[in-house]
Amino acid sequence: MNVLIVFAHHEPKSFGSALLKRSVDALQAHGHAVRVSDLHAMNFNPVATADDFTERRFPDLLQYDREQKHAWQRDAFAPDIQAEIDKLLWCDFLILQFPLWWFSVPAMLKGWIDRVFVNGAVYGQGRRMDTGGLKGRRAMLTVTTGCYPEMVAEDGLLGGLDVNLWHLNSGTLAYAGFEVLRPFMAWSIHYTDEARRHQYLDEYAARLAGIEQDTPMFFHPLADFGRDWRLRPEVEPKTVGHRRPVAG
Amino acid sequence: MNVLIVFAHHEPKSFGSALLKRSVDALQAHGHAVRVSDLHAMNFNPVATADDFTERRFPDLLQYDREQKHAWQRDAFAPDIQAEIDKLLWCDFLILQFPLWWFSVPAMLKGWIDRVFVNGAVYGQGRRMDTGGLKGRRAMLTVTTGCYPEMVAEDGLLGGLDVNLWHLNSGTLAYAGFEVLRPFMAWSIHYTDEARRHQYLDEYAARLAGIEQDTPMFFHPLADFGRDWRLRPEVEPKTVGHRRPVAG
Repeated sequence: MNVLIVFAHHEPKSFGSALLKRSVDALQAHGHAVRVSDLHAMNFNPVATADDFTERRFPDLLQYDREQKHAWQRDAFAPDIQAEIDKLLWCDFLILQFPLWWFSVPAMLKGWIDRVFVNGAVYGQGRRMDTGGLKGRRAMLTVTTGCYPEMVAEDGLLGGLDVNLWHLNSGTLAYAGFEVLRPFMAWSIHYTDEARRHQYLDEYAARLAGIEQDTPMFFHPLADFGRDWRLRPEVEPKTVGHRRPVAG
Repeated sequence: MNVLIVFAHHEPKSFGSALLKRSVDALQAHGHAVRVSDLHAMNFNPVATADDFTERRFPDLLQYDREQKHAWQRDAFAPDIQAEIDKLLWCDFLILQFPLWWFSVPAMLKGWIDRVFVNGAVYGQGRRMDTGGLKGRRAMLTVTTGCYPEMVAEDGLLGGLDVNLWHLNSGTLAYAGFEVLRPFMAWSIHYTDEARRHQYLDEYAARLAGIEQDTPMFFHPLADFGRDWRLRPEVEPKTVGHRRPVAG
């Protein structure tokens, strides 16, 4: 497979960087082609502006997603965005690796998503979820945390992990059409000793050895929803994101 | 009250900007003091780096949250961060206003959170949720969307709104200690006519007139959790983020 790892960490000597290196080695050892977008090393610009387009459909008012669609049709993205789109469309498997900050990605990685997951290529004109533009590819989150796993148990202090990551796993990756694998989590890194860190590296390499056989997370396909955008009456909600409204 | 509005929109002529202006007028008309951080106008830097600190506790390895804690104790933040911390601590009511991008804030606003919600002032040493550093203050999200409200109904295509926004309402605002008011949503702005937009402006002004009396969203207090970080057996899960694990 072709594997793209988008990596957002501010410190090259971090455990996150060690995890990245190990993943590249493990994937290459299994015969995969690997490319890495190390966003801090690239000095990637995460801020969406009018400069992202070399021509405009609506020059007077920046409607960002509409200009993405236009730029996709006209080959009119700024070079830094086009380079990342090319990598995204090259890959069969996408890994987003980051430290969990405020239960989401750091701004650097959010900006990569904002600017590179473009209307036209990734979604648009009703294509999303199981008809998303990146259908047929796989993706996963690789996350280093400050919190303990018990804190994001289903009844944990911070709410369940899948609820915390819903906007990424469902709202971003599944929305774009990816089959989404369960995240790889390395917990509470500040308070982890050297032995446990080595164990995480080994666990990650072992996990990546099986990614082609890994069973994706379940997300409801478009066919489960009616024309009112709601789950059809006969479909039981099967994700943490969906529940039957309480009557009343 | 002192009200801080942190605004992240790439287009000064957008509906989002009209909504911002209306909110400032409405709040001032009710006697509130208002400050605005218009992040694009300020050319705010959303990327967390070593430059954010004028001195370091651990110069060899950037552990961002640990340096935040140190900088908070030593008054060692870069001036752009300190200016925003000062505004944050000045306010009684915080509004984060943004277009919903990938079911979260744009990178520009994520970077404001990453860099300004600092360890020491906002959380740390066990202070979070109802013991968070910003306890006694209120906050809310003001969100313009591309999607329709039916799509984020509890059984909607994209999953429930409160699940999508969990990482912001719970993971960010409630975590920091804020009482969190229900978000103000202006839906599907691209496909909204002038009359509906005026109606949104009026609805927003009316909403803001009552913010001091508004009932906050419920989040479980720390006392609902045991020393294992899980909901105590006698406490029923009452948020979309919490559920009893299924035995087995």
